[in-house]
Amino acid sequence: MDQQRKLLKEEIHKWLSSNREDGINLLRKLVQASSTQKNEKAAQDIVIETIKKIGMEIDIWEPDGIQLQTHPFFACDRNEFKDSPNVVGILKGSGGGRSIILNGHIDVVPAGDVSQWADDPFSGKVVEGKLYGRGSTDMKGGNVALLLAITAIRELGIQLKGDVIFQSVIEEESGGLGTLAAIERGYVADAAIIPEPTNMKIFPKQQGSIWFRISVHGRSAHGGTRYEGVSAIENAFNVVKHIGELEKHRNNRITDNLYKNIPIPIPINVGKIEGGDWPSSVADLVKLEGRMGVSPDETIEEAKNEMTKWLKTLPEKNSWFDHNPVELEWFGARWVPGTIDLDHKLMKCLSSSVIDVTGEEAIIEASPWGTDGGLLTNVAATPTIVFGPGKTEKAHHPDEYIELDKLFEAAEIIALTVVEWCGACHDPLFVD
Amino acid sequence: MDQQRKLLKEEIHKWLSSNREDGINLLRKLVQASSTQKNEKAAQDIVIETIKKIGMEIDIWEPDGIQLQTHPFFACDRNEFKDSPNVVGILKGSGGGRSIILNGHIDVVPAGDVSQWADDPFSGKVVEGKLYGRGSTDMKGGNVALLLAITAIRELGIQLKGDVIFQSVIEEESGGLGTLAAIERGYVADAAIIPEPTNMKIFPKQQGSIWFRISVHGRSAHGGTRYEGVSAIENAFNVVKHIGELEKHRNNRITDNLYKNIPIPIPINVGKIEGGDWPSSVADLVKLEGRMGVSPDETIEEAKNEMTKWLKTLPEKNSWFDHNPVELEWFGARWVPGTIDLDHKLMKCLSSSVIDVTGEEAIIEASPWGTDGGLLTNVAATPTIVFGPGKTEKAHHPDEYIELDKLFEAAEIIALTVVEWCGACHDPLFVD
Repeated sequence: MDQQRKLLKEEIHKWLSSNREDGINLLRKLVQASSTQKNEKAAQDIVIETIKKIGMEIDIWEPDGIQLQTHPFFACDRNEFKDSPNVVGILKGSGGGRSIILNGHIDVVPAGDVSQWADDPFSGKVVEGKLYGRGSTDMKGGNVALLLAITAIRELGIQLKGDVIFQSVIEEESGGLGTLAAIERGYVADAAIIPEPTNMKIFPKQQGSIWFRISVHGRSAHGGTRYEGVSAIENAFNVVKHIGELEKHRNNRITDNLYKNIPIPIPINVGKIEGGDWPSSVADLVKLEGRMGVSPDETIEEAKNEMTKWLKTLPEKNSWFDHNPVELEWFGARWVPGTIDLDHKLMKCLSSSVIDVTGEEAIIEASPWGTDGGLLTNVAATPTIVFGPGKTEKAHHPDEYIELDKLFEAAEIIALTVVEWCGACHDPLFVD
Repeated sequence: MDQQRKLLKEEIHKWLSSNREDGINLLRKLVQASSTQKNEKAAQDIVIETIKKIGMEIDIWEPDGIQLQTHPFFACDRNEFKDSPNVVGILKGSGGGRSIILNGHIDVVPAGDVSQWADDPFSGKVVEGKLYGRGSTDMKGGNVALLLAITAIRELGIQLKGDVIFQSVIEEESGGLGTLAAIERGYVADAAIIPEPTNMKIFPKQQGSIWFRISVHGRSAHGGTRYEGVSAIENAFNVVKHIGELEKHRNNRITDNLYKNIPIPIPINVGKIEGGDWPSSVADLVKLEGRMGVSPDETIEEAKNEMTKWLKTLPEKNSWFDHNPVELEWFGARWVPGTIDLDHKLMKCLSSSVIDVTGEEAIIEASPWGTDGGLLTNVAATPTIVFGPGKTEKAHHPDEYIELDKLFEAAEIIALTVVEWCGACHDPLFVD
């Protein structure tokens, strides 16, 4: 690390230390704003206020769902975004530098079974250096790291050459409509970072994923003569088991070294089940909803085709499915897989910042889940790295939390990376 | 068959033949009234109109749920019955005879998956001697048989000695609140017939049944790292399998000869499943709802205790359940098991009427499902036989239908039985 970079690192670190309380308060407020799908506005208002204070140009808009739904990469279960604004803040560079998109989603998944949480799922409570609540890790912690990094750069008086485009987007958890809307509004850059909870690992490959719905049929009968019917619930169990075999089969094919520490590189998760309409009747219809991981080495179409073909082999297991085939739909969310070259310049900037800040070599791995990085890479031609604080396994979990130290560490790494990537000129820190 | 009885049988048969169209029209209108729970009024209005025409005394009332819910045999998922009236019609006897309750429920279960029906589930359409629609078999066909039997007796000018109490009750499908309300209103008799669809078999034993809800827990996680969570859906499959073993165990104990032709005498049916709240999350809670058959040789409490104990053995199969036990609730419906002595006088009257009308010996079997007969037997001390037209296996089924010939045959048998049971005096048919 040269002297100038060392000085920069120290100044950023100092600034972050003295603004630690403000950062924690910002995260707490964002978590408490409980921005599940369709409830994003209160959290976005907090983001807007923060961006205004930084002094960025602001662009706030409600995506036009009717127009966007004709886009080939549209994947969303709604087309009306009243009171669900996207927010973008722009820090214009002086020119001659590389631009960067810093993208984070403001939406969070539902709290789930509240009884499994030790506290209110949206408490934002801090205990032993961890801030708790749905969205703390996925990914408001990352968003706050971005905002802190940008604020630090501004307040330290560093004039960047390239533009910084901060994006607080909606709908990531349901398919990336927010990022798609930002791309369609014209936001592209030379590269991007998304601070999803990678536990400070660098993810150059993002897994894609798609949502499916499978309707499983049975034949109704009175529960007292249930042997006259065929239970769609029992059939559904067999379908879930069959899907489990497909998952195994698909994952056996994955040889990419970036996946070597991931137990199931591209999981298929059946997350919802619903069926039957009367306790005393044999259920004649069960609907399963789930998420299929898509490898960066296949297209979404290839993955879909494999599932379609696999489900057609159900009659080999149970002749019921011969005359009563399951129905497969793809709906709602979809995350496009994405890849950045391992020797891309941003990979180098980020890796060296990780070493400089933590003293340790960054772990480079493939992402176990989809992110908006696929859209940035494939639709906006903006190569994207996923890197952020927070433990992957805490995302979508009860008692979700983020370690605050990691959040500030990430902010420092990102600030350093952005300065190197965008380039800095004549800033007060570096006067000769 | 003596001469007088033969004459009576012929007159009833003739009357039913000449009123066949009216009977079919009445059933069609009742089916079309689609009287699912809380939607019984339109169908009851048709019943009221019919009873008025017959010239019976009428009693119409909305049960007082608040008062009834303190009754030890109350089992219902609501306590408000506005616009859900019970209807009773009374044909006063001249005295000195035995009284009879003729009880049928007006409520029907939901249509289920409409796509499995060849036609509108409430069409009431007649094709090749069968009338189709939800409720045709369970049990509006039986109700029409009762009304035809009573009308025939009246129109043939037969003066009965004992009272006939016709009951069109709500809520049978959800636990018998309608019949309980009628009992609490004071309606008891020397015996009762319920024309549920026994396919013209005589059921002296009625199976009881109870509804249960089981909450199965998992641990949430992001679907992309599903191996960090525990799927409540997969756990639910194991619970259903475990319940299947209990069913086997309980049925192995049944040795009563009346059950010898029934594949599973007291089934346990899991009829509903619902769980998980996001396709991309591991489900942390699944709720199962079902119906447990109760043998006439055990009490409801004994059956409940056996299920409770059985579910406590889940940890032997999977240690997850050790720290995350399932939760069992009993809710909504409950049908008390019931029995009438095989040598009861009404058994003899009915059996001989079956032979006289059909020329064949009646099949005597145990009922594979609960009926309101349990309440009549146990709470009203009114021994009850279940006997009616319609195939058991069509109840709660798509394309439910009733064979019209059987309906009229049942009406003839019931009319003959009622005359013998209640006794007749000085009627124009039997003048010396």
